[in-house]
Amino acid sequence: MGLNKIYAPIADDLEEVERCLQEAAQVDDPLLAELLKYAVEGSGKRLRPAFTLLCGKFYHYNPALLVPMAAAVELLHTATLVHDDIVDHSPVRRGKPTVSHAFGENRALLLGDYLFAKAGRLCADTDNLKVIKLFAQTLMTISGGEVRQTAFTFDLKTARDYYYSWISAKTACLFCLACESGAILGQSPEEAITAMRDYGHNLGMAFQIADDVLDFVGEQGEIGKPVGSDLTEGAVTLPSILYAESHPDDDIIKTVLASKDARDVARAVEKIKNSSSIGKCLDIASDFCSRACRAIEKLPDSIFRSSLVDLANYVITRRK
Amino acid sequence: MGLNKIYAPIADDLEEVERCLQEAAQVDDPLLAELLKYAVEGSGKRLRPAFTLLCGKFYHYNPALLVPMAAAVELLHTATLVHDDIVDHSPVRRGKPTVSHAFGENRALLLGDYLFAKAGRLCADTDNLKVIKLFAQTLMTISGGEVRQTAFTFDLKTARDYYYSWISAKTACLFCLACESGAILGQSPEEAITAMRDYGHNLGMAFQIADDVLDFVGEQGEIGKPVGSDLTEGAVTLPSILYAESHPDDDIIKTVLASKDARDVARAVEKIKNSSSIGKCLDIASDFCSRACRAIEKLPDSIFRSSLVDLANYVITRRK
Repeated sequence: MGLNKIYAPIADDLEEVERCLQEAAQVDDPLLAELLKYAVEGSGKRLRPAFTLLCGKFYHYNPALLVPMAAAVELLHTATLVHDDIVDHSPVRRGKPTVSHAFGENRALLLGDYLFAKAGRLCADTDNLKVIKLFAQTLMTISGGEVRQTAFTFDLKTARDYYYSWISAKTACLFCLACESGAILGQSPEEAITAMRDYGHNLGMAFQIADDVLDFVGEQGEIGKPVGSDLTEGAVTLPSILYAESHPDDDIIKTVLASKDARDVARAVEKIKNSSSIGKCLDIASDFCSRACRAIEKLPDSIFRSSLVDLANYVITRRK
Repeated sequence: MGLNKIYAPIADDLEEVERCLQEAAQVDDPLLAELLKYAVEGSGKRLRPAFTLLCGKFYHYNPALLVPMAAAVELLHTATLVHDDIVDHSPVRRGKPTVSHAFGENRALLLGDYLFAKAGRLCADTDNLKVIKLFAQTLMTISGGEVRQTAFTFDLKTARDYYYSWISAKTACLFCLACESGAILGQSPEEAITAMRDYGHNLGMAFQIADDVLDFVGEQGEIGKPVGSDLTEGAVTLPSILYAESHPDDDIIKTVLASKDARDVARAVEKIKNSSSIGKCLDIASDFCSRACRAIEKLPDSIFRSSLVDLANYVITRRK
């Protein structure tokens, strides 16, 4: 099912979010305005704002709070991407040059800081202290996790646990924020908030695993960056880990990490892509996805719950 | 007068702030803990937390709110320094290697992000929405100002106005936050909040001008970085601007900006240091300082107001 159909029950308010993002880019200074426009506009799927709006729909929907919160979540996401692309020296994201490649690393760094602040400001517009604290905590988890990742060394014995805790911090945590903040601002009862947070966590895990699979099997034109980018940047994701686990005598992962040579990366991608580890990864992603859907089973039956279930399926079947 | 004496009326709570900062550095991940300890510990004068505590003292002092806010202000300051040192490629700050030089730019970038988040989390502990919004707005002003500064080109006609708006965003704005948040959390009446904000703004301007003078006339051992660092990094501050204004036929500033040659910098520093522009800068700093003191004249007479006045004088007479 396409995103347009899934987003139908919140289409009007997603447009409001878009307007809110465009407003955030309207500032006096022409350079800052240009940077903001470049970072905010684009081909993003706006998944996270959609989670916030949908999770806010179950009890007392209040778009005056949910729209700025949804925009805050998207801007927080954008800020972390802008900074990640500096750290990883990534040239391309979503098919266009990253902010750091187009405008230089200094401007990208400062733009990221501004986006964090603007996201925080929008979040504060909800006047909800629980959500504000959750927002700050989420950025602590994300950046703390990235700091830890800079000390990463590949060790097969701990690789899988390490990977899960890494993607939990870098991705699932923001999905949690998107869902939980929606649930809170929608005045959901405590069990429903927990259910939507669990949905967010599990779907975030599924999303990231699916993303890491796409880095091996996707088409460059669709995923918007070169295939094998993760290995090139020294990131060992689940497909590599499962391959290494089931091929204890093949040192290809260690070779790639040591050499960072494009031919080694290409060889590794070929091997992993054609191994059973891709299928196993998709099974694991599917499991997380099922857990996400089970978490929200007891929420009131509605078109919003259907959209959340459809989004879960979209996340693991998407090709970009 | 020394800082110890000025800080006497808030000495116990400043120690609490220090404990709060140390606690902020106690995290599970050993690398993050090491980075936090490195960034937070040190020879900082803790001016900004002192402003928050002193400004909180006039009406209903509540250390349970003011201590985390003071720590938040100091961490926000630290985060901006960590990121600034990446942008400027600064090797040394306060006499020790910058985080980016000691641990690399990637870790410095991510540490800065974590510090922003932790500062935001501590600020949220005040449960005061006005202060939380002010905090986010301050980071928008600081990072937005730094973005603008990346497009800086020297033009004598606009240089002074440009300089004032730059230091207002990068320094005075944080002094404002420190003072205004203290005033708000101390339940000050509206006119008193305005008075303390004005104090913070004017003192911040004075502080930065004095700092920029020290970059010319200070001793490397005392200021903790090489003399002439600003010009080396392409930053044209008030001493250079006043020199250029009164020596329209001397192209030394433009030469330095074009060549970035160490000998040109040394020549420029000598010329400016021995010109009347240093004295004029100190007069201007003094004026801002007087305005700061006048702003708080109508606050209740107390040892706290005396400390604020003494701090104002300290700021423009310090040698490091």
